[in-house]
Amino acid sequence: MDFEVMIIGCGPAGLQAAIHAARKKVKVAVVGHPGRSGLNKGHIENYFGVQKTEGAQLLATGVEQAKRFGAQLFEQDVLKVEKAEDRFVVFTDHDLELRAKVLILATGISRAKLNVEGEKEFLGKGVSYCAACDAGFFRGKKVAVIGDESTAATSAILLMQYASQVHWISREVNVAEQLLEKVRRAKVQLLAPSWPSKIMGDEVVKGLELKDGQKLEVDGVFIELGAKGAADLALELGVIPDPSGTIKVNENMETEVQGLFACGDVTGQPWQLARAVGQGCIAGTNAAKLVRKEVE
Amino acid sequence: MDFEVMIIGCGPAGLQAAIHAARKKVKVAVVGHPGRSGLNKGHIENYFGVQKTEGAQLLATGVEQAKRFGAQLFEQDVLKVEKAEDRFVVFTDHDLELRAKVLILATGISRAKLNVEGEKEFLGKGVSYCAACDAGFFRGKKVAVIGDESTAATSAILLMQYASQVHWISREVNVAEQLLEKVRRAKVQLLAPSWPSKIMGDEVVKGLELKDGQKLEVDGVFIELGAKGAADLALELGVIPDPSGTIKVNENMETEVQGLFACGDVTGQPWQLARAVGQGCIAGTNAAKLVRKEVE
Repeated sequence: MDFEVMIIGCGPAGLQAAIHAARKKVKVAVVGHPGRSGLNKGHIENYFGVQKTEGAQLLATGVEQAKRFGAQLFEQDVLKVEKAEDRFVVFTDHDLELRAKVLILATGISRAKLNVEGEKEFLGKGVSYCAACDAGFFRGKKVAVIGDESTAATSAILLMQYASQVHWISREVNVAEQLLEKVRRAKVQLLAPSWPSKIMGDEVVKGLELKDGQKLEVDGVFIELGAKGAADLALELGVIPDPSGTIKVNENMETEVQGLFACGDVTGQPWQLARAVGQGCIAGTNAAKLVRKEVE
Repeated sequence: MDFEVMIIGCGPAGLQAAIHAARKKVKVAVVGHPGRSGLNKGHIENYFGVQKTEGAQLLATGVEQAKRFGAQLFEQDVLKVEKAEDRFVVFTDHDLELRAKVLILATGISRAKLNVEGEKEFLGKGVSYCAACDAGFFRGKKVAVIGDESTAATSAILLMQYASQVHWISREVNVAEQLLEKVRRAKVQLLAPSWPSKIMGDEVVKGLELKDGQKLEVDGVFIELGAKGAADLALELGVIPDPSGTIKVNENMETEVQGLFACGDVTGQPWQLARAVGQGCIAGTNAAKLVRKEVE
């Protein structure tokens, strides 16, 4: 499916970008789940012009606005993104392939921690939040991936190319059937329902203890909660996020890759609704402008 | 009166900055008229999370929010601003003197044109929108100032220091009595009610024709509609706006002057509510952070 502007992420930054781009009469796709936006569970009282309200209500209205202006919404997870010639190509967990001239990353930033003993202590000593960044360090070793959704699944598949053994530990697998089939074919060892209680080690990670008491010998623990983050996607397109996972943009919300924009929490602090919305507006407007320039 | 963060401008950028700064428990003053914000007459349908609404309604809610978080609002015009040691000092048309450690310029950008014959033709050839910028070119010459509000009044007073004669042409003078007294003392020649119909000249401005048929011989016409703009205020603090009146800021909304921030339309395009709100959030958050750092 072909679009002019594609937006990954369906929170306030992504939806505001969609509203502004679609108003300029360019063909817009938004990929993501509004229900997974950090705003979804928030109570908001510091957003200009809006009395105390629920984040979920703002998101519902934002989705309506984006659709009314003509944006198409795909409630799917992005598994992979690549740049082929002058188009960005996005692959989703429903086996859809979406193409567009301009791509906006608005996935938010994952602040999801596992909150178990050893997690903080062994960060960078076997514990990682980014399989795409760190898989190469675990060649021939045993690793565990923790998570229920598509990031965990794709991380497990990726790690099979490096590690000798990959355990995927999930409370309840929540990914599309097509993706689950790929996990099976890659020979990932799925442990579900299950969940870690403790990460063990001395100088570095040595193992993982599960809630049922079972112990796994592993050298690496990849915590991959939620959907694929902008940092992973940016990496796939050749943009290197800083150590906190932040993507650098200029005042027009452009990254260093031609045609690739980012906006919202993924570009830095403060993590605030108003800031996300403002950046979405700038990214959407400039993305549409870039498309129009190409067309003219 | 002493504050920690002072904001000039009471539109979406200024109010969002006030909300975010006041939430951090710093002492905040906002100076300006919400009714004069460009948003006041707008119909809004592209602001994330908000169905079709009136700009005036958003402004009324924004004022309530800013006050609820503890900001103090002064519905006054700013006549002058200066930096004295480590404080910014703001002088208003009600003879108030407000002081603060940090100053945020959020006045919007004046797009007010006079719309008379000769205005466009003689721009830069006798027609100017900034007395503070161009007064020096009219030493010993005759000039006219067009406008009803405090910018016109202060521009006329300023021009008396350079020009041999200053006519102030106003439909209806709308400034505080204290300021009007200064206009009189400066020997500005007030023509009111009156209004121009045409700017005349050959290569440069030679005169002004009024609606009642009267003709004035002048070399300069200063169009000073509305309240004092951020460009003038920035100039007073040593920041040079670009030719379009835009003030340059970094990603934290800081100008090149320590403690001076700018946000909203005055920092550039697109002139959109969402962008103004986003920048207000960033400016307010960082302004409060700067105050806290000073205190610690």
